Amino acid sequence: MSQLPPEKSPPDGLVEAFWEYERALMDNDLPALDRLFAPGPTTLRGDADGLLVGHDLISAFRGTRGGAPARRILQTHVQVVDAEHALVVAVTELERGGRGQQTQLWARTADGWAVTAAHESVPAPALDTRIWRVVGDPLLPPTARGVLDGESVAVKDLYAVAGQRVGAGNPAWLAEAHVEPRSATVVEALLDAGASVRGIARTDEFAYSLAGTNAHTGTPPNPRAPHRISGGSTSGSASAVSLGQATIGLGTDTGGSIRVPASYQGLYGIRTTHGLVSTYGVLPLARSFDAVGWLTRDAALLARVGDVLLPPSAAGPVHDLVTVPGLNALAQPDVAAVVDELAGGATRESWELSALPIWSSAFQVLQAWEAWRERGPWLTTRLDTLGADVRGRFEAAALIDDERAGAAARVVDDAGRRIGELIGDRVLVLPSASSVAPTPGEGLQAVRDATMSLTCLAGLGGLPAVSIPRTTADGLPAGVCLVAASGRDRDLLALAVELSS
Amino acid sequence: MSQLPPEKSPPDGLVEAFWEYERALMDNDLPALDRLFAPGPTTLRGDADGLLVGHDLISAFRGTRGGAPARRILQTHVQVVDAEHALVVAVTELERGGRGQQTQLWARTADGWAVTAAHESVPAPALDTRIWRVVGDPLLPPTARGVLDGESVAVKDLYAVAGQRVGAGNPAWLAEAHVEPRSATVVEALLDAGASVRGIARTDEFAYSLAGTNAHTGTPPNPRAPHRISGGSTSGSASAVSLGQATIGLGTDTGGSIRVPASYQGLYGIRTTHGLVSTYGVLPLARSFDAVGWLTRDAALLARVGDVLLPPSAAGPVHDLVTVPGLNALAQPDVAAVVDELAGGATRESWELSALPIWSSAFQVLQAWEAWRERGPWLTTRLDTLGADVRGRFEAAALIDDERAGAAARVVDDAGRRIGELIGDRVLVLPSASSVAPTPGEGLQAVRDATMSLTCLAGLGGLPAVSIPRTTADGLPAGVCLVAASGRDRDLLALAVELSS
Repeated sequence: MSQLPPEKSPPDGLVEAFWEYERALMDNDLPALDRLFAPGPTTLRGDADGLLVGHDLISAFRGTRGGAPARRILQTHVQVVDAEHALVVAVTELERGGRGQQTQLWARTADGWAVTAAHESVPAPALDTRIWRVVGDPLLPPTARGVLDGESVAVKDLYAVAGQRVGAGNPAWLAEAHVEPRSATVVEALLDAGASVRGIARTDEFAYSLAGTNAHTGTPPNPRAPHRISGGSTSGSASAVSLGQATIGLGTDTGGSIRVPASYQGLYGIRTTHGLVSTYGVLPLARSFDAVGWLTRDAALLARVGDVLLPPSAAGPVHDLVTVPGLNALAQPDVAAVVDELAGGATRESWELSALPIWSSAFQVLQAWEAWRERGPWLTTRLDTLGADVRGRFEAAALIDDERAGAAARVVDDAGRRIGELIGDRVLVLPSASSVAPTPGEGLQAVRDATMSLTCLAGLGGLPAVSIPRTTADGLPAGVCLVAASGRDRDLLALAVELSS
Repeated sequence: MSQLPPEKSPPDGLVEAFWEYERALMDNDLPALDRLFAPGPTTLRGDADGLLVGHDLISAFRGTRGGAPARRILQTHVQVVDAEHALVVAVTELERGGRGQQTQLWARTADGWAVTAAHESVPAPALDTRIWRVVGDPLLPPTARGVLDGESVAVKDLYAVAGQRVGAGNPAWLAEAHVEPRSATVVEALLDAGASVRGIARTDEFAYSLAGTNAHTGTPPNPRAPHRISGGSTSGSASAVSLGQATIGLGTDTGGSIRVPASYQGLYGIRTTHGLVSTYGVLPLARSFDAVGWLTRDAALLARVGDVLLPPSAAGPVHDLVTVPGLNALAQPDVAAVVDELAGGATRESWELSALPIWSSAFQVLQAWEAWRERGPWLTTRLDTLGADVRGRFEAAALIDDERAGAAARVVDDAGRRIGELIGDRVLVLPSASSVAPTPGEGLQAVRDATMSLTCLAGLGGLPAVSIPRTTADGLPAGVCLVAASGRDRDLLALAVELSS
């Protein structure tokens, strides 16, 4: 029996090292914390946001988090393995309330005692305000029984929800918003099919971002790619579904706002054919491109929501896949690889893509001009309420004159027609985003530009697009996007089910 | 350097034991789980609800929880200490979504490999539905700035909250409730003093319990006394404050519904003088006894809320403490001991207490008769919507005729007068509850009866009562109750601050 009696006293120096760690943690003394964690690639530190492997990642995490919450140690339990190893389990009491637990394996190294593995738990907040603005059990109950019985919806904070305000990701907008007397048509349809509303989920401000890094409420967690961004603008809905806090993430997709978080978080997502699904009760961003969409953890539920929200398809199944190496090459190699894999049996075609930068630019110009037309009158005296990224986008939008917008609109129309012709009655397979989820430090504007050159295609054509989750060689989520002809949404969903079974 | 390179392969049999544990966990194979956790008093298992110490407690916990959530192992990291010890850190992916972490220290024993310490984390739900029905960031913002700036309120689900329904802890009641056009007077006063409403917190059904064990939504956690009951009926508000999910727990106290959860969870709590604070917008239980109350983690905030909700005191400070050994003897010895300690300098008096059982019984009879008058017309066809404990209480209440109620009312009036005379202008120090928080298995009706013989005193006299948290010799929370003359609420709060500094 190698049981560990409590009376086995801790090895020399361990107690001092434990308390030195506690002091360093409370002081956010980064050099001391780095020293008290064992060097090398096998050191572990895990918490609710995920497991970090290796001293360097742990050190980088500490460098950005701005310290741990104030706490005191209530109890310690030491399990001594030998003179050089001991497990220390501590019960903590947080100054803000509640209790946590810290489990550490300590080892004596040449430089003294160091932690080789740590597992931290702190009490959960009432709600994760990075993900949600309001949640309930439920917030709104179903209004009937139906095919969505038992499902729960995270509603992007652009949709009217009866009894609640629309916040659009901006506190000043929320403060001036009225209480909605009824829910958006799509929300009512989901409730009528048996689903409940779990809550109102965070969005990037006015949905004008693909990152999810809302300056006011923070970036929702990405459980499938810890410490990487969530993707947006349907950011809260996506994280809620990833975490199992809701089963359906309702959102919108103007330039990729469903497809990008689906790709970054390993979810299924659909952007519906432009105009096919009611946007009544949804705050617009750019009406030429705005489309209803939703996210789920499995293809069957994605399709089941489609059965509720989409009209029956007039056409038959879609099976004929086409893939364009020149488009895949716009993504990072790890992402292109998963697209190539899914598109294995597809027809490979070379499209004339020299106009793509012009198309993408025209998309963004028209989107911006329309966005300013929608929000400009209100925003013009409130630009300082916006985060820097979204503010920059709206400020640039304000400078676009009608002539430039008109020219962009003509390019958009031509491009949309051309894309429709190229795809025809087939399904285009391409990356949902240009990369896996970036870390917050990466140049997000460059990532956005690269991704929009891919996502703009469905937007320009007003075409339905489904993102199917795959995993890169590094184990990170990446989406493969299927784009079909206008109105073929249900057929595309059926194909997604087939490809995922 | 005793670093642990990844290539150090796991000792013989460890991998098999790890997977056998995983199988046993998913199958809820209790004998196998018991075998795979090391025997003895030092074995540890911790999760968000607290740390369990000792094989027996861990085994008992497993016996009642009904299995772990379905999951798969995504990654494992093994740190081998020696041939007989290794740490295994696993990243789990839950079938319902999200990722968790499991950290285990394994030791080779005479009976094979066994876990000596485990730390489990699973993804948090959108909201803890044992504590909350609805939460927001905030649910209602402040309407002005004031002395409660930055404070957040957990509102017991008996108070009107603008835009929300009153659920009263009963799903059938909630389903028929209307949306409240405005908040209860007390809620409006808190908002007007700078506080926000964090959410609507669970209550025992119609507040007719002291346990917090709502049959529909479960028992809120008690972080200060893990795996023990929360106390009620202001159960959700108390847990929210304990956990730091709100700073003010708003509730009601008819027969102890503030004092008991305060005592069980180590919080400060006040039951105000009957009728002193507006109950407009609060669902009544028994109007002769119902009083507004609130809970906090510190005495200063308890008093600050009093500054907002209470009229100025006409009298001066209260200092003259009196304690009655015959009352203290009604509590368990561990609780009586903390009362004696706080009452060290108090006058010790022997009161003639032979009528106490009659008083307590009269209190309960009149409470029941009034409760049935309030809820009977609605409940009479809906008794089957109640949990067994509350149903039994209402069924008994339905049988009380007016004659018996009238006799009880006369006893209540006499007792109230007598208690007021006994206390006079002094402060009675007594136990807030008869015991520390019981475990769910203990006979809760007997605990209720014992506690009500203490709590009924303030109720009978309509007197203000403040519960001050102390810790028993076993490290569990227990409240010391201070009861003063009618209207001396603010003076009592000042005394609580003084005694706690």
